[in-house]
Amino acid sequence: MALKVKGPFYGPTLRNIFVAVRSNKLFEIFVITVIVVSALKVGLSTYPLGPRLTAALQVLNYAVTVFFLVEILVRMAAEESLRRFFRNGWNVFDFVIVTASLIPIDESEMALLGRLLRIFRVLRLVSVIPELRVLLNALLQAIPRMGYVSLLMFIIVYIYAAVGSSIFSGINPTLWGNISVAMLTLFRVATFEDWTDVMYETMAVYPLSWAFYLSFIFLVAFIFLNMMIGIVIQTLQSEQERFARANPATEAEEHTLSTDERLMRIEARLKQMHKDLCIGVDQRV
Amino acid sequence: MALKVKGPFYGPTLRNIFVAVRSNKLFEIFVITVIVVSALKVGLSTYPLGPRLTAALQVLNYAVTVFFLVEILVRMAAEESLRRFFRNGWNVFDFVIVTASLIPIDESEMALLGRLLRIFRVLRLVSVIPELRVLLNALLQAIPRMGYVSLLMFIIVYIYAAVGSSIFSGINPTLWGNISVAMLTLFRVATFEDWTDVMYETMAVYPLSWAFYLSFIFLVAFIFLNMMIGIVIQTLQSEQERFARANPATEAEEHTLSTDERLMRIEARLKQMHKDLCIGVDQRV
Amino acid sequence: MALKVKGPFYGPTLRNIFVAVRSNKLFEIFVITVIVVSALKVGLSTYPLGPRLTAALQVLNYAVTVFFLVEILVRMAAEESLRRFFRNGWNVFDFVIVTASLIPIDESEMALLGRLLRIFRVLRLVSVIPELRVLLNALLQAIPRMGYVSLLMFIIVYIYAAVGSSIFSGINPTLWGNISVAMLTLFRVATFEDWTDVMYETMAVYPLSWAFYLSFIFLVAFIFLNMMIGIVIQTLQSEQERFARANPATEAEEHTLSTDERLMRIEARLKQMHKDLCIGVDQRV
Amino acid sequence: MALKVKGPFYGPTLRNIFVAVRSNKLFEIFVITVIVVSALKVGLSTYPLGPRLTAALQVLNYAVTVFFLVEILVRMAAEESLRRFFRNGWNVFDFVIVTASLIPIDESEMALLGRLLRIFRVLRLVSVIPELRVLLNALLQAIPRMGYVSLLMFIIVYIYAAVGSSIFSGINPTLWGNISVAMLTLFRVATFEDWTDVMYETMAVYPLSWAFYLSFIFLVAFIFLNMMIGIVIQTLQSEQERFARANPATEAEEHTLSTDERLMRIEARLKQMHKDLCIGVDQRV
Repeated sequence: MALKVKGPFYGPTLRNIFVAVRSNKLFEIFVITVIVVSALKVGLSTYPLGPRLTAALQVLNYAVTVFFLVEILVRMAAEESLRRFFRNGWNVFDFVIVTASLIPIDESEMALLGRLLRIFRVLRLVSVIPELRVLLNALLQAIPRMGYVSLLMFIIVYIYAAVGSSIFSGINPTLWGNISVAMLTLFRVATFEDWTDVMYETMAVYPLSWAFYLSFIFLVAFIFLNMMIGIVIQTLQSEQERFARANPATEAEEHTLSTDERLMRIEARLKQMHKDLCIGVDQRV
Repeated sequence: MALKVKGPFYGPTLRNIFVAVRSNKLFEIFVITVIVVSALKVGLSTYPLGPRLTAALQVLNYAVTVFFLVEILVRMAAEESLRRFFRNGWNVFDFVIVTASLIPIDESEMALLGRLLRIFRVLRLVSVIPELRVLLNALLQAIPRMGYVSLLMFIIVYIYAAVGSSIFSGINPTLWGNISVAMLTLFRVATFEDWTDVMYETMAVYPLSWAFYLSFIFLVAFIFLNMMIGIVIQTLQSEQERFARANPATEAEEHTLSTDERLMRIEARLKQMHKDLCIGVDQRV
Repeated sequence: MALKVKGPFYGPTLRNIFVAVRSNKLFEIFVITVIVVSALKVGLSTYPLGPRLTAALQVLNYAVTVFFLVEILVRMAAEESLRRFFRNGWNVFDFVIVTASLIPIDESEMALLGRLLRIFRVLRLVSVIPELRVLLNALLQAIPRMGYVSLLMFIIVYIYAAVGSSIFSGINPTLWGNISVAMLTLFRVATFEDWTDVMYETMAVYPLSWAFYLSFIFLVAFIFLNMMIGIVIQTLQSEQERFARANPATEAEEHTLSTDERLMRIEARLKQMHKDLCIGVDQRV
Repeated sequence: MALKVKGPFYGPTLRNIFVAVRSNKLFEIFVITVIVVSALKVGLSTYPLGPRLTAALQVLNYAVTVFFLVEILVRMAAEESLRRFFRNGWNVFDFVIVTASLIPIDESEMALLGRLLRIFRVLRLVSVIPELRVLLNALLQAIPRMGYVSLLMFIIVYIYAAVGSSIFSGINPTLWGNISVAMLTLFRVATFEDWTDVMYETMAVYPLSWAFYLSFIFLVAFIFLNMMIGIVIQTLQSEQERFARANPATEAEEHTLSTDERLMRIEARLKQMHKDLCIGVDQRV
């Protein structure tokens, strides 16, 4: 019945053919295959190859570029309007990747940029597999949760870097020369990467500088621990809320009339009945 | 009574003896002992031993091989049919291990393969202890949960490896020479293993390359964190579902008739009664 | 109406102007901007700068110091009494930071202390952004939870350090010379930082010393794991309690009369009604 | 009243004095102080000290030993019987620590053992502070939870060590010489400690050996992850059960008669009433 209503809009026009192509299962699988081939090509081109293979890969590259262009044009034509097409962030992403690879890049100068663009085509795998899109959206939504904790962590690293740079810059300028370098050094300490080498070096001059490193490690580990627990709890709560929203019937019923309210009404009715009966019984006696 | 019914099939035939042997507690303990002895022998043979001990271990090896053969034949004979025996994955695993160790391997060439096969016999400890089988099955069932997250992680490592290999291959071919080597280097960075050495090397040429490493570490740590939380939540939910399935009585009752439905029926009945009574009372008045 | 009552106290006096200034949104943003500028200045001064920029930064420093003084005076004047102002820990913190930066420090000797004080001004970012204050308070409240576990961990590290210092001090005095140095070495082992170098060194003399390190790592990892789980559970419980406190209506109702009590009362009433009815029916029959 | 009944047994005898001493708050604090002093003495003696301080510490050591002897004798005398005293594991622990420190050890040979015994006295801090005893008991109870997972982990490490020792022993005998050394190397790999150095060494001979290390890391990380999640879930469940046991009233009521059973009984009674009423009404009509 829904199809009947939509009937007039989906006549055998050109757009309907594009819609049919876009939603075709085989076409989808072919698109994924082309992206995977393109990804393998990217990987293969990092190996030293003979001139014939390089030429073959170049041809493959052109073929993939043309196919991607055709595919995005099909999807644009299948959409009702261009505005609606670009409202979807993934479409914008695909469009940028495809058009950027169309710009002619002369071999000498911009070769690296061209190669990077071809690498980012691999990300189209994320845009084409729905499960990965859902996953990435979920990950992106998790970022704000960490907002203020990350800000606090940044402030702490900044202060420690400023202190470390003020005191230790004379000992090892490579590690503590300015605040940027010091922040990198502190990030290294936070990952436990040869942090004792950094510490022993400054302890030779300032024997108490171990307190600087240990307090930093405890603070960072402590905040990280709390951040992780905070995210676990928030995720659990949002899961429970989503579960509650998925079972709205029960919720709605309970909201309109809770068990207690229902029981109270039954009690009131019984009290009334009891009174009525007593009157009846009294009258009869 | 169940034994009576099964009686005719379990007469004092040869198969019944095998069944009795297989389910004998002492036999089970003996099998575990032989596997442990075989495991100890594997460990012992990695030490330099005198010729007499080596010969003794060789004899022990033959004895273990023969015992394993006998044991698996008993278990095959105890089963109703060979098809049913091989339907169990653990039986197939045991069969492969035992038959492979029967193939005569001349000392010179395939000696290493023979030793590896004898090592894998230790895995029979997993197949023989039920608790370990349950545990391993649970672990295997947990793999698909990580499917798409692992795919996403692989894509990210692949892209970073392609980018790193494109830019840094000239700096250190051992670390960034091609995409495979670059992926191994990035896995090393993800485990924080001397990652600053890798970074400082490329920062000498590209001073901004720290952004490459830091963004990679944040992405990987972030996805890993979310994967871990996701698994915790899924495991908690499946535990709750299993708990609900284990207490089906309450569930079933609630499904056929919820508390609210029951209360509504009581209310309706009371309303009807009230009406009836009122009529009665009215009539009497 | 609340404003009317407060009217007489909030006339167009000087204090009311300060209150208005303090709660002005633009003023708040300006304060945050000044703190951020001051933080950037702290970072910038770790780089080697020309004499003109240094002079400019010096002027900026004076300007920030004066502004902070004015801002804290405004906030003090806006408060009802100084006692009330100092009752808030964050105000005390701000006051200490600001007054300390007023003390004239001659360039030669105390220059480092002066620089550190200017760095700690960055912490005012925490005191001025409410979300960060809430976060830091939450982190501070989480500390006692870890009290006894940290004590246990300290005792274990202390004992291992005493044992290690007794046995290994002759091998490497830098690592095991006395109990403080040994505790630092064990903390290093706990972070897995080149711990095998430490172990191989002592294993050359005491081949069984691996047991010392492995048992220590297992104990620390085990306690850490349990601590983390303990905190997760405690945080979950306190969340649930807070949730229960936030929905007190339902809780209160359930406390005054549980579903079961209500049902028992209904049953009792029905029993009485049934008896009454039976009498009635009996009498009528 | 309870005191009255116990009266005859708690007359002003010697034992009652000991009981009073043992439960005296000041005595407890003094015991803790002596243990802390003894712990500090242990730490202090790892530093190089002058002969006078060494002599003073020796005197302190004798004093502590005597005090510990007196304290344990008081506690033994305060107990009803020696059997009851030794039934408590913590008492046995204290007794062993105290009696072992009484054995005269000549300076030359057994000096190290004597020092170790004095170090283990610090553990008496755990036996004397109730909160730490509870914590340690909880940790000990958590060990069996990890039983089979640890066994599985050990089997995996054992197999990998056997394989590694078989293949790589020729490359680096220090790391892969025999199965014990190989297990230590794999534990090192599991802690990510310079694991790439180990890998690159074997990859020079067997280029595919990265698969050995990566599969090992994934397996160990995967099992560890699942173990951690398993413990979290088990701890959560035992917490919930303990909570349910702490509120037994509600539980008991629900067990004797569930809400549904109660409702069904109400319904049955109402049906009966309705029938009775109908008869009444019918008769009256």
